[in-house]
Amino acid sequence: MKQAQTVITISTRGKGLVPIDRPVLSWVAEQEIGTGLLTLWCRHTSASLLVQENADPDVRTDLEAYFETIAPEDPSRYVHGMEGPDDMPAHLRTALTQSGLTIPLAGGRPVLGTWQGLYLFEHRAAPHRRQVVLHLLGD
Amino acid sequence: MKQAQTVITISTRGKGLVPIDRPVLSWVAEQEIGTGLLTLWCRHTSASLLVQENADPDVRTDLEAYFETIAPEDPSRYVHGMEGPDDMPAHLRTALTQSGLTIPLAGGRPVLGTWQGLYLFEHRAAPHRRQVVLHLLGD
Amino acid sequence: MKQAQTVITISTRGKGLVPIDRPVLSWVAEQEIGTGLLTLWCRHTSASLLVQENADPDVRTDLEAYFETIAPEDPSRYVHGMEGPDDMPAHLRTALTQSGLTIPLAGGRPVLGTWQGLYLFEHRAAPHRRQVVLHLLGD
Repeated sequence: MKQAQTVITISTRGKGLVPIDRPVLSWVAEQEIGTGLLTLWCRHTSASLLVQENADPDVRTDLEAYFETIAPEDPSRYVHGMEGPDDMPAHLRTALTQSGLTIPLAGGRPVLGTWQGLYLFEHRAAPHRRQVVLHLLGD
Repeated sequence: MKQAQTVITISTRGKGLVPIDRPVLSWVAEQEIGTGLLTLWCRHTSASLLVQENADPDVRTDLEAYFETIAPEDPSRYVHGMEGPDDMPAHLRTALTQSGLTIPLAGGRPVLGTWQGLYLFEHRAAPHRRQVVLHLLGD
Repeated sequence: MKQAQTVITISTRGKGLVPIDRPVLSWVAEQEIGTGLLTLWCRHTSASLLVQENADPDVRTDLEAYFETIAPEDPSRYVHGMEGPDDMPAHLRTALTQSGLTIPLAGGRPVLGTWQGLYLFEHRAAPHRRQVVLHLLGD
C-alpha cells in the first residue's frame, strides 16, 4: 500500500464551473496505483468541488444559474459584506456543494461514470487561483 | 492492510429514496475487515447518495417532497431540456446531495448512528438501474 | 500504514455552528501520522458537518440564518412532525450539508486552507450531545 500527494492550482475566470478532469486524471495516471482511493480537497471557502454531467454544456449553464438563484447576491440578506457582495453567497454555495471528494480507483482510474465530470466551482466574481490537494492511496 | 471492491446495481422505480443498507452491509460483512474505511460511489449525475433517518417513513416522504420544491421540474427555468423535463432538476438535486460517501468501519461495521440509513436517491421519473461502487480498505 | 480511530462528543447549545477544530486537530497530532487521510463521521441525522470560514463571525451568523430560510421550520410543509417542529427541517439541513468529511493529511496536519474551519452544525433547537467518529489512516 502506498500513498502519493500533490497540489494542483486551478486558475478561474470568475464565477463558473471549471473542468479539472484533465490535471487530476493525468496526475493519477502517473502514480501507477491500480486499486485505491483518490481524495480531492479544495482549500477555500468560496470555491468548491462538483461532479456533474460533462456532455451537454447547457447543464453547466443551468447549474450556474441555479446557484445564483438559490443563494442570491443580495446584500440586504447578509450581515457579512466586507469582502464584497459576492462573498457571502460564495460561502453559502460552498456549503451546499463539497470541499472534498473521495473516489475509488479501479484499473488505475477513478470509477467515474461515463457522464461524470470533475469540476471546480468558482463562486467569486473575480478570477482566482485555487488550490486543490490530490491524495492517492492504494496499490 | 487490504482492499476490496465491488459494484452493486440498484433498481429504482422512478423518483425516490431506495434503502441500500442491506446490500452494502452484507458485502462489507463478507470482507472480514475489522477497522477501515468504506467508500460508496454513485456513477450517475441524476441519482445520488443520502444518509437519512430510517425510522419514520414520513421523513422520506418529506425529503422527496422537499427536493421537488427546491429544484422544481419547470422547463421554463432551464436551458437543458433535451433529456426530458425531469433531467435538469435531477442534476441539481444530485449537486445538492452527494455522489460519494466515506464512512469509517469499526468492529467490521460502518460506524453509522442508530437512525442513519443509507439511501440511493433516484432523481429521474422513470425506473433506472444504478451502479454504486463499494470500496473497502482496512485490516 | 497504520490506522487510528476515536469518538469525540460535542455538546451543543441548540441550533448553530460549533467549531470542532481543536478536539479534532489535537487528536490527530497525538497519532503521529505524517501523510494520510482523516475522516470525520457525524452519527446523527439532525446534525451535520460543515467546512467554513473561521475569520469573520458574521459568516457564521449568515450561514445559520440562511439554513433557517432554505429549510424553514413550518409544520404546514411537512408530514413528519412527531419529534417537534424543528426535527424535519433538521433532517433537510443535514441532507443539504454533510455527514462525513475526508481530508488528506500532510506533515501531520489536515490540508485545510488558512480560512477553513471545521464545524459541527447542530440543527435541533435543544442542546444535544453529538458523536463524531474520527478515523486516521496513513504513515
